[in-house]
Amino acid sequence: MGSVVGLLAETGRRIDPVMEKYLSRNVAPEFRDAVLYQIRIGGKRIRPALTMVSATAAGGKEEDAYPAAAAVEIIHNYSLVLDDIIDHSELRRGHPTVWKKYGISTAILVAVHYRESAAEALNDTPDPVAFNEIMAWTVKELIEGERLDILMEQAGREDEPYVVANRISEMRLEDYLRMVEKKTARLIETSCRFGGMSVGAPKRVVEALSRYGYNVGLAFQVGDDIIDLFGKQEKTGKRVGQDIKEHKLGNVVVLLALEELRGTPEGEELESIIKKPVISWEEVGRAMKIISSTHAREKAEELRDRYVSEALKALEELGESEARRLLEGLAVFIREREF
Amino acid sequence: MGSVVGLLAETGRRIDPVMEKYLSRNVAPEFRDAVLYQIRIGGKRIRPALTMVSATAAGGKEEDAYPAAAAVEIIHNYSLVLDDIIDHSELRRGHPTVWKKYGISTAILVAVHYRESAAEALNDTPDPVAFNEIMAWTVKELIEGERLDILMEQAGREDEPYVVANRISEMRLEDYLRMVEKKTARLIETSCRFGGMSVGAPKRVVEALSRYGYNVGLAFQVGDDIIDLFGKQEKTGKRVGQDIKEHKLGNVVVLLALEELRGTPEGEELESIIKKPVISWEEVGRAMKIISSTHAREKAEELRDRYVSEALKALEELGESEARRLLEGLAVFIREREF
Repeated sequence: MGSVVGLLAETGRRIDPVMEKYLSRNVAPEFRDAVLYQIRIGGKRIRPALTMVSATAAGGKEEDAYPAAAAVEIIHNYSLVLDDIIDHSELRRGHPTVWKKYGISTAILVAVHYRESAAEALNDTPDPVAFNEIMAWTVKELIEGERLDILMEQAGREDEPYVVANRISEMRLEDYLRMVEKKTARLIETSCRFGGMSVGAPKRVVEALSRYGYNVGLAFQVGDDIIDLFGKQEKTGKRVGQDIKEHKLGNVVVLLALEELRGTPEGEELESIIKKPVISWEEVGRAMKIISSTHAREKAEELRDRYVSEALKALEELGESEARRLLEGLAVFIREREF
Repeated sequence: MGSVVGLLAETGRRIDPVMEKYLSRNVAPEFRDAVLYQIRIGGKRIRPALTMVSATAAGGKEEDAYPAAAAVEIIHNYSLVLDDIIDHSELRRGHPTVWKKYGISTAILVAVHYRESAAEALNDTPDPVAFNEIMAWTVKELIEGERLDILMEQAGREDEPYVVANRISEMRLEDYLRMVEKKTARLIETSCRFGGMSVGAPKRVVEALSRYGYNVGLAFQVGDDIIDLFGKQEKTGKRVGQDIKEHKLGNVVVLLALEELRGTPEGEELESIIKKPVISWEEVGRAMKIISSTHAREKAEELRDRYVSEALKALEELGESEARRLLEGLAVFIREREF
């Protein structure tokens, strides 16, 4: 199944020269390295690959989706550069983040440059007005998802008045899903939609591809949450329980456990751990033990699998093709993956 | 002459509801106040006014320029929100800056939201592809101007590796003018250009309006530099020599003085003051005395007046109208103003 991801990555890599073309437009020679750094340190290019494979699955030519594919990946990296500033993250893909390497001012200028390069790419799509409108909406959704994500942190950012005043301390599953929808699913939905639109696919097909992308995005994030808590360290390379350590209410398994344990001493203990300003690994272990005593994991898996089924169902609108099988393969991979 | 500015401000104010419309699109109710704060604390709205008056001067209707006018003012405020983060500025227009009031993460999200709202506004212009392309170019110019401006600071930002490694310590007048062209003149040029384009003016008229805006922008900035050093405190409300205090090489009068004094002891003394990590007001006074002993002030005034003449000359391409007289009045005001 891993080969699906390999195939997608290989497809996505074909977008690199196109991205570099737009990012190199109107850039001072002394600024170019800083601009290209973020995309040169890697990335799986899943979003542009989805745009390109969606274009092919809709019966069109991959090349016709290049400008839109470049735009979605540039926007994705734009959001990463800014997220790393916002989260004070020093490492990404095993390298220093842009702000860590160049400084915050430079990172902000790089990010702004990315947004303009994406605008230039969208201008080369077959219907710039439609593509622009959808991208503006998508980025506003990303902002809202990031805003909710920040407000779901249970401690920290004491120097940020807006965050301190608006923290979300009571959270229901639907609030969490709304955050994931905006922060993760929208751009993947738009990536697939853009593929169909780039090759002039009929509305029915474009909508089916969008539905596929949206559900794959949700399934992916729920899967990620499960792996964060139950993944095998030898496969993920990460210590389990990272989300708890970062006192995030925004992990679906934690939320489902809290819901099940509402009103019990274990529920209160779990909540009190999550809300501590600093959480020790010992407390992470205790939280994991409480979570494991519930049905949270299987409920989360059911949720993930429901999204995968929706994604697969959406694809039934499309004719048979190798590209469609690749999209199906990705959905199945998300259901099966352990890392 | 001040009434010209009053008239422009009155014109510009008519764009506020249009800006609010785009900024309020797809925004969470709990985020709306933070988004609107930056435009509600004031601003002279000179740029949208120039778009609107340019539209009228080209023989069209002001209303047809509303989407473009909203876009340029939103972009202007986008750059201000980010500049205030970059420069750690705590006050703007007598109010806390967005990051100071809400925190840095929120300010970044507000800025990103501004760029998308501008994209939505540009989509409502008569030729979105052309407007988008020019705006992407303009913002990339703004980034480059800001990059150069940061690198012209002679001290500070020790925690920013890119700035420390790339500081511009030797500067010629033309480098400075290149920075001002990008950081200040481009967006004013684009504001005027958009006015002509919004009403379908012939190419000759659009180019004339652009030339007018470009030269007005340069004249304005050179005038600002002169006032920083020689303005009367009772008129400006600011202490003179602020640019020297902030050890900026980027003041045209300072540069012209350094050029004239090259190789002399006074020249070396002036340069050594400018490059000190911290500059006392006594040293600012000494620098002012050295600058006053040169012809730098009159050379700067000549430069400013040359740009004003170019701006007025560009307007000769346009037919007579009240709007044209307003544009002329602004250029003359920039030449005469003392604050």
